[in-house]
Amino acid sequence: MTSQTPTLAVIGGDGIGPEVTAEALKVLKAATGEDAFTFVDYDLGAERWLRTGEVLPDSVLEELKGVDAIVLGAVGAAPGSTEIPSGLLERGLLLKLRFALDQAVNLRPSKYFPGTATPLSSEVVNRGPIDFVVVREGTEGLYCGNGGAVRVGTPQEIATEVSVNTAFGVERVVRDAFTRAMARRQKLTLVHKHNVLVNAGGLWRRIVEEVGAEFPGVTTDYLHIDAATIMLVADPQRFDVIVTDNLFGDILTDEAGAITGGIGLAASANINVSGEFPSMFEPVHGSAPDIAGQQKADPTAAISSMALLLDHLGRPEDARRIEQAVSADVAERTGARRTSEVGDAIASRL
Amino acid sequence: MTSQTPTLAVIGGDGIGPEVTAEALKVLKAATGEDAFTFVDYDLGAERWLRTGEVLPDSVLEELKGVDAIVLGAVGAAPGSTEIPSGLLERGLLLKLRFALDQAVNLRPSKYFPGTATPLSSEVVNRGPIDFVVVREGTEGLYCGNGGAVRVGTPQEIATEVSVNTAFGVERVVRDAFTRAMARRQKLTLVHKHNVLVNAGGLWRRIVEEVGAEFPGVTTDYLHIDAATIMLVADPQRFDVIVTDNLFGDILTDEAGAITGGIGLAASANINVSGEFPSMFEPVHGSAPDIAGQQKADPTAAISSMALLLDHLGRPEDARRIEQAVSADVAERTGARRTSEVGDAIASRL
Ligand SMILES: CC(C)[C@H](C(=O)O)[C@@H](O)C(=O)O
Ligand SMILES: CC(C)[C@H](C(=O)O)[C@@H](O)C(=O)O
Repeated sequence: MTSQTPTLAVIGGDGIGPEVTAEALKVLKAATGEDAFTFVDYDLGAERWLRTGEVLPDSVLEELKGVDAIVLGAVGAAPGSTEIPSGLLERGLLLKLRFALDQAVNLRPSKYFPGTATPLSSEVVNRGPIDFVVVREGTEGLYCGNGGAVRVGTPQEIATEVSVNTAFGVERVVRDAFTRAMARRQKLTLVHKHNVLVNAGGLWRRIVEEVGAEFPGVTTDYLHIDAATIMLVADPQRFDVIVTDNLFGDILTDEAGAITGGIGLAASANINVSGEFPSMFEPVHGSAPDIAGQQKADPTAAISSMALLLDHLGRPEDARRIEQAVSADVAERTGARRTSEVGDAIASRL
Repeated sequence: MTSQTPTLAVIGGDGIGPEVTAEALKVLKAATGEDAFTFVDYDLGAERWLRTGEVLPDSVLEELKGVDAIVLGAVGAAPGSTEIPSGLLERGLLLKLRFALDQAVNLRPSKYFPGTATPLSSEVVNRGPIDFVVVREGTEGLYCGNGGAVRVGTPQEIATEVSVNTAFGVERVVRDAFTRAMARRQKLTLVHKHNVLVNAGGLWRRIVEEVGAEFPGVTTDYLHIDAATIMLVADPQRFDVIVTDNLFGDILTDEAGAITGGIGLAASANINVSGEFPSMFEPVHGSAPDIAGQQKADPTAAISSMALLLDHLGRPEDARRIEQAVSADVAERTGARRTSEVGDAIASRL
């Protein structure tokens, strides 16, 4: 890819995915100019599967391995869909990309913008800034697809799910989390459930201790996942960097989104830490099929994900400009706007 | 056990466990009279282990199988303890009892008492009553202790945790949940993560569908665990009965405790549904070693657990009297009180 413009693969995906992605690209172009990137659209998701039976053909995956970054909207059919088997798209496309592109660090920042809607009381939010990041492991744990079932559909059915955790996999995200903590407020919280999940929990604790020894400036503490869900609502200011496994990270970042202005604001990056394969940038929210195509979705999370993309591609100034445009827009929000109106408003500030 | 007074085994346990249990028994006796039950104390927990190396001797477990119910305070050393291995007491005592006594239904009611402290905004809490129960599966899932690790302590370590789910185990809690929903507001929400955990999630969905067909009056819906953590803070009124697996139930009930007046109010019952073995009644909170022995702990959760115990032992009027005394006390709370003062205040209303 020498000095030509970087190529971004764009996967709008399902439900509200294409709508919010359109606004994300609008803002990205407003920040960097029209010609900073070459965009290549990929038609993947529910519609393609229904039309062709293909989820992610090998040839497409190979192509994607060669791009500079991936912009993703959302993937997944409605939970009650009868046409599309549960998890088919999530596992065959979204998780397949995270795993095949070895996106170990699923980075999910949470920041509360004063004045935005939150289910928390003013007593809690006025205590101080809420500003933390979750470093969620993205390629292991219960997401490996390492389960099975026997005697399916009978009263004797047994179904298992296996969480797989490796020192290699844990170490690289823990190291990433400590590095981020150093550049922030030097505090790292490990979230797990080591009193029950003693094997996986033991591994996570050991690695945090070992890597932590290399970062003496960072204070570490620990919370069980159940206690962490309490702290997120009762004392969100206590968090700086949270490091945790794939499933706990999934759960915590949705809850974090809910308290910091809603899941419509929560951005994420799936980072390939070695640089061998492209990273992927997507909102934390799902495809929300119930409001798809109605211009009702909030594209802010998708737009903020573009700031994470620009950081990753070495354009931090442009990233900050997008962040500032988002903050300014969010601070002035009043009534409902159409998806495209939000994108226009943010783009017009750039 | 013919017509003699029922026997209650009392395990105060660790940290604040003995303090809150003392108040629970005080209120229980105030509600039923001193002689309604025979109490037998069991010295189990951290101290016994440190003294004798015993967690739960087989002979004690056999004795416990013969009592009518168990009152438990809290079990567990401080998360950072170096004296006591992580999870030793939780797995060897608390979970051992839940599993050995086949306590399939871990029942955790959540009710918000207007006026009590909550991290939620008044906009959210004033929308309507928050009153739901979580029926958490108690004998399967990731709590089976079915994991392992190889090359421990090396860069090649691999640690696994296995979630085991059976049609038998899921069916009995789902049936219990539907029965409770019928007696409440006829709404049941299954919480799982079936788009990722397709095997276990598929089993849970099938059983909810099948058992649900026997309860046509109950409306069912479904939420992924991540979305459920959002709904608990953004729209807690939407829930009536939640049915879910062991780990998701652990997580949701702590978050539920946090929004409904704090984890100091959250009661629970571990119910043996066949009646073969005793059920166990305990607060949702843990042993909180940092405030142990200081009369700072709120015993309300332990006290409310006694109402669940009385319901289980066929004394619903006494159960309602305890609930009313708790509500009345909670409604008038202002400053901090000592643990024993809370117990005295509630007992004096009976
Ligand atoms: C759609 C789903 C598979 C996904 C996940 O569980 O990781 C989503 O919830 C997320 O958080 O990105
Ligand atoms: C102490 C711990 C093992 C226990 C659990 O995880 O079940 C506790 O958190 C609970 O919810 O009762």
